[in-house]
Amino acid sequence: MISTLESLSCPSNAVAATDRVLLAHGEGGRLMRRLIQDRILPKLDNEFLRLAGDAAMLPACVGQLAMTTDSFVVSPLFFPGGDIGSLAVYGTVNDLVVAGAVPRWISLALILEEGLEIAVLEHVLTSVAAAARRVGVPVVTGDTKVVPRGAADKIFINTTGVGEIAATPPAGPQALQLGDELIVSGPIARHGIAVMSAREGLEFDPPPTSDSAPLVEAVLSLQRSFVPLRALRDATRGGLGAVLHEWADSCGHTLVIDESVLPMNPETRGACELLGLDPIHVANEGTMVVAVPAGESERAVAVLRGVAETAQAVRIGRVERLGIAAVVVERAAGLRIPLDEPIGAPLPRIC
Amino acid sequence: MISTLESLSCPSNAVAATDRVLLAHGEGGRLMRRLIQDRILPKLDNEFLRLAGDAAMLPACVGQLAMTTDSFVVSPLFFPGGDIGSLAVYGTVNDLVVAGAVPRWISLALILEEGLEIAVLEHVLTSVAAAARRVGVPVVTGDTKVVPRGAADKIFINTTGVGEIAATPPAGPQALQLGDELIVSGPIARHGIAVMSAREGLEFDPPPTSDSAPLVEAVLSLQRSFVPLRALRDATRGGLGAVLHEWADSCGHTLVIDESVLPMNPETRGACELLGLDPIHVANEGTMVVAVPAGESERAVAVLRGVAETAQAVRIGRVERLGIAAVVVERAAGLRIPLDEPIGAPLPRIC
Repeated sequence: MISTLESLSCPSNAVAATDRVLLAHGEGGRLMRRLIQDRILPKLDNEFLRLAGDAAMLPACVGQLAMTTDSFVVSPLFFPGGDIGSLAVYGTVNDLVVAGAVPRWISLALILEEGLEIAVLEHVLTSVAAAARRVGVPVVTGDTKVVPRGAADKIFINTTGVGEIAATPPAGPQALQLGDELIVSGPIARHGIAVMSAREGLEFDPPPTSDSAPLVEAVLSLQRSFVPLRALRDATRGGLGAVLHEWADSCGHTLVIDESVLPMNPETRGACELLGLDPIHVANEGTMVVAVPAGESERAVAVLRGVAETAQAVRIGRVERLGIAAVVVERAAGLRIPLDEPIGAPLPRIC
Repeated sequence: MISTLESLSCPSNAVAATDRVLLAHGEGGRLMRRLIQDRILPKLDNEFLRLAGDAAMLPACVGQLAMTTDSFVVSPLFFPGGDIGSLAVYGTVNDLVVAGAVPRWISLALILEEGLEIAVLEHVLTSVAAAARRVGVPVVTGDTKVVPRGAADKIFINTTGVGEIAATPPAGPQALQLGDELIVSGPIARHGIAVMSAREGLEFDPPPTSDSAPLVEAVLSLQRSFVPLRALRDATRGGLGAVLHEWADSCGHTLVIDESVLPMNPETRGACELLGLDPIHVANEGTMVVAVPAGESERAVAVLRGVAETAQAVRIGRVERLGIAAVVVERAAGLRIPLDEPIGAPLPRIC
């Protein structure tokens, strides 16, 4: 699989000009209509796109809505465990589900660099379509822009999602209380390490793979089991550390995590050690932090472990009275180290 | 005004590194939180953004929804009559209103190039905020990514909008009938010519200005006056010509327009002649095409002329039985010329 992807990201000179994206593909004329009608729409086909004029017409809804937007600029476009297409779908869908919403519709906006191979675009769109089918959320409207060579890097994608609030959403991090328990839904730092290894050509064996995945089923399962949820957050840019700092800021308490139980894959751990990166600050793309009231973590972890994407969920810590620092890591032998908030994380373009 | 804008787009070397966007601003750490909290949120402040977690929580709605997305990659960022910020708001809002929806909420996603002056970002955001206030549509959620120098060109913006269908939306171009009358809401080709002149440093006096503007009031006025509307479309990329070709395709009839009545500003006309561009194919950003049943154009034009943004609306043509071509331009002395559909329009990065 990797070799296929590498051949895509290292285009040979044999690719004909007609197999590449041209500036004219973005200019509203016949070429643009053909690109959209022949290459894009068939992959994403659904009742909304088929009727699309300037805007998609969506069915009436009755509940409260949630809306989220994300642009994806990941480099390389393809990496072990995912690609920019599925990442764009899961990233936006996950932002909706951790807010307590059922994802209903997403939009897809492409910024393409002149000269991009159409085959690469088609691979990405196939991945978008498969991811959208997996989560049952149609791409209802879209946009395509082309910029001259050098004005963007291959493909940037924006996905914006709208969901419906079905159950009562989690109260949010400002509602965290002393004694609340903290869970992480799977091994951390996989996405950032996978993308960085792919980008820098680091040859780990086995290669670290991204955790890019939808969290829809996991959150739905928690809701169906009536586990009381204080807060949910997918730990993307800035990793687990960024979520803990934001939550500590919001509630004014100290969050304490136990380093020895933090789940990690051996290949991710090895790469982090080699590269000198703290996995707590490395991005995830299908892993969330869950806060539940005291005594509820066992049930929450059991529910999460029943779902494929969160089968390795673990309780990692708790909320304590404000102490020496907003976030504290407990090391072996009870040593407590404040967790710094990095000024900026060390990995650009990981999502 | 132009001189201020030029100084923004030609940054002097005197700008300190701290006054520029850094890669770290996009990495989920403290710098990113500060950029968003100190520079972005205060400008766009509203009840939704103040509470924003991963997704904005929107009030319940009862009707059918409409959703549209657009990315903006215009170069230069500032041009006579507008800038990328207001363009991004009006462009998305206009797509909703011509679909018959009342715009309710928009999202704002920024892709920033490392090294961009923060002052430029602030100018753009001030413009986004002013445009959003003008149309009464809050920016409810957002995203900020930073890519390394050279991986994007200054700022790309995605705005995605959600609206509610209030009245019955126009039937759409497939419903166009013989005898239907075609209206254009104002002078054409202004946006494409203004952006191109600014980009190429062409010194026309007076400079051509963009028509970038919201069409909310104009469409609302038509609806309030119960003018029967067959189809509406803002004539953006590909200009008036692209709309006419799409509509002719949809309905299977011939659309005939009278060249002598096409509204144009003298400075736009002069620039088009000098540059050898056919204004029919040049983009607009606040000008729409309206189709109404036979005999209704006089009333529709009168209503449009009562609104500031469409004060120069004109009836330009009609729907006829399929003839020699899908779109026909009537020249002086009744000469009828088929209007070609360009393969790609000649102006990249105009929106």
